[in-house]
Order: sequence, then C-alpha cells, then structure tokens
Amino acid sequence: MSGAMSNPTNSPVRAARHLLSVADLGRDGIEEIMRVADSFVEVGRRAIPKVPALRGKTIVSLFCEDSTRTRLSFETAARRLSADIMNFSAPSSSLSKGESLRDTVETIDAMGVHALVVRHSSAGVPWQVASWVSASVVNAGDGWHEHPTQALLDCFTIRQSLEPDRGLEGLRIAIVGDVKHSRVARSNIIAFSSLGAEVTVVAPPTLLPPSLAGWPVTVSHDLDTVLPKSDVIYLLRLQTERATESLLPSVREYTAGYGLTRERGRLLAERALVMHPGPMNRGVEIAAELAGLPNSLVTRQVANGVAVRMAVLYLLLGSGADLGA
Amino acid sequence: MSGAMSNPTNSPVRAARHLLSVADLGRDGIEEIMRVADSFVEVGRRAIPKVPALRGKTIVSLFCEDSTRTRLSFETAARRLSADIMNFSAPSSSLSKGESLRDTVETIDAMGVHALVVRHSSAGVPWQVASWVSASVVNAGDGWHEHPTQALLDCFTIRQSLEPDRGLEGLRIAIVGDVKHSRVARSNIIAFSSLGAEVTVVAPPTLLPPSLAGWPVTVSHDLDTVLPKSDVIYLLRLQTERATESLLPSVREYTAGYGLTRERGRLLAERALVMHPGPMNRGVEIAAELAGLPNSLVTRQVANGVAVRMAVLYLLLGSGADLGA
Amino acid sequence: MSGAMSNPTNSPVRAARHLLSVADLGRDGIEEIMRVADSFVEVGRRAIPKVPALRGKTIVSLFCEDSTRTRLSFETAARRLSADIMNFSAPSSSLSKGESLRDTVETIDAMGVHALVVRHSSAGVPWQVASWVSASVVNAGDGWHEHPTQALLDCFTIRQSLEPDRGLEGLRIAIVGDVKHSRVARSNIIAFSSLGAEVTVVAPPTLLPPSLAGWPVTVSHDLDTVLPKSDVIYLLRLQTERATESLLPSVREYTAGYGLTRERGRLLAERALVMHPGPMNRGVEIAAELAGLPNSLVTRQVANGVAVRMAVLYLLLGSGADLGA
Repeated sequence: MSGAMSNPTNSPVRAARHLLSVADLGRDGIEEIMRVADSFVEVGRRAIPKVPALRGKTIVSLFCEDSTRTRLSFETAARRLSADIMNFSAPSSSLSKGESLRDTVETIDAMGVHALVVRHSSAGVPWQVASWVSASVVNAGDGWHEHPTQALLDCFTIRQSLEPDRGLEGLRIAIVGDVKHSRVARSNIIAFSSLGAEVTVVAPPTLLPPSLAGWPVTVSHDLDTVLPKSDVIYLLRLQTERATESLLPSVREYTAGYGLTRERGRLLAERALVMHPGPMNRGVEIAAELAGLPNSLVTRQVANGVAVRMAVLYLLLGSGADLGA
Repeated sequence: MSGAMSNPTNSPVRAARHLLSVADLGRDGIEEIMRVADSFVEVGRRAIPKVPALRGKTIVSLFCEDSTRTRLSFETAARRLSADIMNFSAPSSSLSKGESLRDTVETIDAMGVHALVVRHSSAGVPWQVASWVSASVVNAGDGWHEHPTQALLDCFTIRQSLEPDRGLEGLRIAIVGDVKHSRVARSNIIAFSSLGAEVTVVAPPTLLPPSLAGWPVTVSHDLDTVLPKSDVIYLLRLQTERATESLLPSVREYTAGYGLTRERGRLLAERALVMHPGPMNRGVEIAAELAGLPNSLVTRQVANGVAVRMAVLYLLLGSGADLGA
Repeated sequence: MSGAMSNPTNSPVRAARHLLSVADLGRDGIEEIMRVADSFVEVGRRAIPKVPALRGKTIVSLFCEDSTRTRLSFETAARRLSADIMNFSAPSSSLSKGESLRDTVETIDAMGVHALVVRHSSAGVPWQVASWVSASVVNAGDGWHEHPTQALLDCFTIRQSLEPDRGLEGLRIAIVGDVKHSRVARSNIIAFSSLGAEVTVVAPPTLLPPSLAGWPVTVSHDLDTVLPKSDVIYLLRLQTERATESLLPSVREYTAGYGLTRERGRLLAERALVMHPGPMNRGVEIAAELAGLPNSLVTRQVANGVAVRMAVLYLLLGSGADLGA
C-alpha cells in the first residue's frame, strides 16, 4: 500500500472524524482521499477484492430517502473492507428532524456501531446526527445541500482520466443544468475549485439559486459558447416533474437550450470529458447515444464510487494498519 | 470434493456464463449441477456449514417481485459459499422494462458485482439484463416463462429419492394444475424431458397454454387415470384469485377435478413421489394432511434448493479451486 | 472467558432450546445469561469486537411488526458472534396466525437455518413457531404478552449498576405506566421477582389488566408515595394515540399523575435508577431533561441489549467452545 497510509496521525480526514461537507476537507483532505482510493482501485482488481481493514467494525446505513445507487455503493465498499453493514431505511417524513430522529440515532449509536452513513431529504441532518453520536457520520446526501462522496468520486474520476500528475489545476469545468436543487452541484463546485479548477455553471435563470454571491463560479446561460472551451462537461439530472411544473416552459425547451444533444456533441473539444451523476434522463439533459461515447465517464464514475467510499470509510474507521489481503 | 469440479474448463455451465433457461443447460449441464450439488448437501451437514469458495465475490439479488422463499434460498446459498450478498428489491412496475431498469442494472454492474440474481414479473427480463452487464445473471423467475433453479432442485430431489444411479430416464411424471401461468411447469417440462422422463400435463383446458405443439408432453384432463401410472405427481400452485375470476367455475370444482384429495391419494402407486414448489394452498390443489406423508418431498425440495443454488453460483463464479472448509 | 461456559451440558438455557418466556428460564437461567453477557460486554470493548463463536450459523430475523431497535440489536449481536443473519420483514396481517405463517416458517426452517428471531403483533406466535420448526426460536416480542430479551437486558443493567454481587434481592422496583398493553412490563415483572426484587406497579386503573391475581406485585395509583421508597423507577412507553382515545382523559393528565416530571424527580432517592425501554415520549412519561441524568440508564440499556442478545444466541446455538477472537 502507498505511503499515504503510513502516518495516520497526520491525516486531515481522520482528524475531522466525520465527513459532512467537502468544504471541511480542503485540498489536503480531498487529495488524501484520492491517494487512498488509488490503492482501493487496485484491490478491486484482485481475484478476491477484499481486505480485512475494517473487520469487526459495524456501519449502519441510515437512508431516509430512496437511493439504490448510493446505498449499494457504500454497502459494497463496506463489504470489501470486511466491515459489517446494517441497513435501516425509513421515509424522511417518519424520521423528521427532532426527537424521533434523535432517539433513533442515539439508540443505534448506543449499540456500539462505528459509523452512520446518513441520507436525508432535509439539509443539515447529518450535522445534527454528528452532534448526537459518538460514531463517525458520513453525509450521503442531505436535501439540496451537499453530497460530498459524489464530489470526491467525481474529482477522482477526472484526475484518473488526465495524464498522470496533471491534477485539476486550471481545468475548465462546466456544470450544466438544475444547479438550484442539486446537492451534487454544490459539493462539486467546492471540490473542483478547491483543487484549482475553473468552474462555470450553465443554466436557465430559474434553475440557479437566488444568489451566487461568494460562489467560486462563472455563470453562463449559453451552453453553445461554453462547450468548446470546456475540458469537462458535468451534466446534472433534471427533476422533470418539478421543473416543468413552474420553473420551465417544457422539458423539450430545456433540452433545446441546455441538453447535450447529438448536434451539440459536435461542439465538444476533442478530449473533453462528459460526466453525469446518474440516473440519466436520456434524451433530456443528455442524448441517449452520448452515454456510450469514449469520453463519457459515467460508468467509471460508478466504479470509482466504490473505491472512493472505501477510502473514506477506511480513513475514518481504520487503524492505519495493514491493508493486505 | 468430487471429481466433478476438477476440470472447470470442460464445464458447460461455466461456459454459458449465465443461467437463464434450463434449455441452455441440456442434459450435461443439468447433470453437472446435480453432481456439484451432491457435494454441497454434504457441506450443509457440517457443524460449520460454510466453505470459502466465493469469498470476496459480491452477489446482488434484484427482486422486482415478492418472493421470500427464493430470495432467502439464494441468500443462504451465497452465505454458505462465503460470498457477500446485497438485496435490492423494487416493484416490477417501478423498474419496468426499458431505460430505468437498464440504468439501475448497469449502475449495479459498474460497481463490480459478480452476479445478479434476477426475479421479475415480465418474461425475458433476465435475458435483457444479461445483455447489459458483465456480471453473471441467474434467472430466479421471469413472468410465466422460466424458473430454472426450481427445475434443477426438483430434478435433484427426484434423483435423490430414487435408487442410486437410477436417474430420471423413463420416469413417468405428471405435472398437475395451472400449467398456463406457471414458469415452474415450463422449466420442469424442459428439465424432466432432457433427463429422459416422460411428462404428462394434467389440467382443465382453460389452464393449458393455447398451443402445446412441440412440447415434449402428453396432455390429459383426467387425473384419476393418470395417478396410478405415475412415479411422480408434481402439483402446481393455483392462483386462486386469478383462476376463479374467469378460468374456472370455482375453486371447489377445481379441487374436485384436479386436487390431490385424500380420496385420490389412494390411487397413488405405492412408491409414488408427491412434489409441490410451494407455497401450497392446502385443501385446494393438495390435501392438508398429504403434505406430511412419507412420500411427500416438499420439505426436501426446499432443503435441496440451497445446495442446488450453491452449485449454480459456484459453477458460475468459482475458480474451480478447493471447496474445503 | 468465564467458567460459566465451561460446562455446557448443565446449561438450563441450552436445555430449553428456545427462549420464549422469561418464566421458562427461572432464576438459574436468568443468572446464566447474565454471566455470559458479562463476557460479551468485554468483547464489545475490543478493537475488533467480534468472536467466531457462531461462524457458519444462520439466523433469520422474522419481524412481522416494525422494530428498528430490537431488530438492529439482534443483528448486531449476531454479527459480533460471526453468525450470518438474514432479515425477513412482513406485516403481521399478511402473515397472520395459521397456514400462511406456518408455510413460511417451515420453508425457512427447511433451508437449514439455526435460529428464528420472531416479533409478531399477536401473543403466542413464537410458541406456535417453535412447535413447527427444528431451529431455535427467540421471542423478540409477541403482542402484549412477553419480551424476554428486554427483561434480561434490564436485569443485567440493574445488576451492573449496583455494587458487585449485590444482585436484585430485596430491591424495590416501581414499574410505572401502561402495564395493561405492555409486554415489557409482563416480562420484567416475572424477571425482577424471579431474582428476588419487590415489584410495585403504578398506573391509573384503566391502564392495568382486568385482574392482577397471582402476579407477584403490589399495586399503587400514587406515584408520589412510591417514588421515594424505590431503588429503581421503570417507566413504560405510553401509546399516546391509544391511551387518549378511550382510556385516559388526556395525555396531559397522564403526565400530571404518572409522568416522571422535573418536579417529581426531586422525590427520587439519591441513588435511584431511572429506566425506560425506549423509544421515550419526552415530556409525557418522562421529562425531556431527565433522560440525560447520571442515574438514567436508558443508554446503557441499549448498549447492554447487544451483549445480552449475544449471550442468548450463544447459549442457544454455540458449541460451548472457545470464545477468543
């Protein structure tokens, strides 16, 4: 294993004890996680893709909002680290903020679990949970607020697709679509700019937050102008029901203006990378056939998600000892 | 372990990579699985009924239709092989054929899982899934179409109940009941006849498919005539709601004509075997008290289901190496 | 490990094969479980809180009634013993007493599982299940009837909070609240009195069973008189919807008469212990701020629940051999 793990006492991730926001990590924390994730990508290629690093540790996934992808990704990561994982799913409504959630969380904590992976439809819930428990808390998505492991796996996937040691410094990344309601956008803007990338958000005014003051981004409403100048195009999922209700004239108009259609694909720079957090609305924010292009990283994002979540869990819960099989 | 596992390169099951239909297996494949399952029956009797054969392999059970029995049987099988198993249940309606199912399946596949065990209410879905993924796919029941592991465990259970080396060659098997809507009937007809058995289907005309042309079966509408000549009576579950709506005058009339009532039990040959895939409608297709008879194999079918599913998963995912504890 | 495990043949818990009622255990059985649980509390403090005692054993949690706490506690216990645990949840209504429940349970049993942990909304179901299967059955709560592992963890937690070797002999324990609908009350009355404690139940007449003849308890309707004389105050959860419908004028009046409010807290003896099975209605049967008092054992009850359930599963399923990591 790499030297990244040889001195756990200097780890900014370990020191933080929780992973709540990408902002808490800073550049050093993000880079530490990416270095550790490199090792776990290698583990994933072994005939027996499993290490005993977290044997005996218990992780509870507390998902108060449906998310098959993220839940299974964390579960796969935990299993590959030999941790035990238990699922507890409940609708956010039945565990709204306040006493009922607190009682549940404190009870789970009292059983002696080591980490809680929390998904909730309300922003801020993972911070509340962290204030109640002695276990480590990982934010797996809270409302429209943050989704730090998504941002980490996206940074990792971009870095992996560039020349070695290139890094994200100076990279031009366009984040396209419903920024207003996207925790993925929020976390990625922080992560990308922490690593030195130049981020442009491209969206109709109705899908931007009321104010972007203080955000390290450039704003554009014209995708055709941004596309040729971008190294990475990051498409956000459109919540089609919500959007058409009041924020957009129609899904078709959205696609006409902001979808990466087949025609618009021709505007991409030759080596531009196309990303999407999934699940994709094919034919809406992304053309169906683009998803399979050589420069589409969608599948690799999913694969890397397991290695990056292994790195997060390992740094939070591991002893820094042996990762050998 | 038996010599059956010594030369994995000649395995027809391994070569197929998926288990979708009994028809793909042919006699050689069915017999290979039964030989391997013999070994796993022995493992099941150990104090620690577990082998490390699939350590580090990840299996996802993708059940889009309720099935406690089959899901738990696969899960038990996976655990005994030391594989990790993750459950993903969703109503078929929310993951109907097409893009949403495809995205979900491709995402799970991209995480690096090794097998998908698929149950879906629509015929053909496991084939679609197999065309999308690099993991192995096991059909755990698709619509009215196929249920290959049920057929395999039924063959195995019959073989186990006969004299050693007797095999199913020439055995007279009656499959009784709602053949039209039964994936179990379809898979068993293929499997039994592949092994040389003579299959008679016994049902009222409304519970038979529109055409049986090409099926290797004899058709009868008279259970009383068939019973004394049968070595095995395989009763199908009656979907009582569906049947009475339009296809049958009443459940009582069905039982009068096609149920294995206590009176009819007297027509059975002395060593005839009674089977049912479960769950049974006691008092409808089978008399309540018959289920406990010495010749009823219902419980043994369930027990063997674990060993047969271990054999399937082992052949698809294992390296052919050591099965010792 | 303690000598308690050195001679498994003399174990009253092992001899019973199931854990259905605290009454079956008697004083010897309860004390045996507490001695074994002592060892598992120590295991829980290890860096890798896991022992191989039940490796290869399969436990199914059959929860026909929602209970996150109890289910996760059993699941954590099973994992720490290296057992495999599979969840099967179904509403009690879909698995009502009778054939459908029986078929499901017999099927699970036939797969070769070693224990069934059963929660059901109808009293007596675990006894039925035990009569159908060859696996061991643990009652995880049946209707208003019994909840033996809750009583065991409560006894254990009290004993742990007293001077060493003090035991519960002669201890004055008040059980306060909705005794009528409480399986926790029923099991605890049996357990506490088996260990020699003097139990007083304190409740309005409408929340007491029609007859308490034969119960080893004193009855009171005046909490203020009982409080100063009690070593332990055990508060029951009030089912607020049910209670206010017909049995109580209002929740506020209940709190005024039977809640451990902040004012009433002053009546507690200096070293009195406050307990609650959770989840608490803060501000109803217990004041919100009391829960964090030094003498509140609520969190410790949860933590001990894992160790006590480990002891139960170990005694029922283990070989009596090595518990070392």
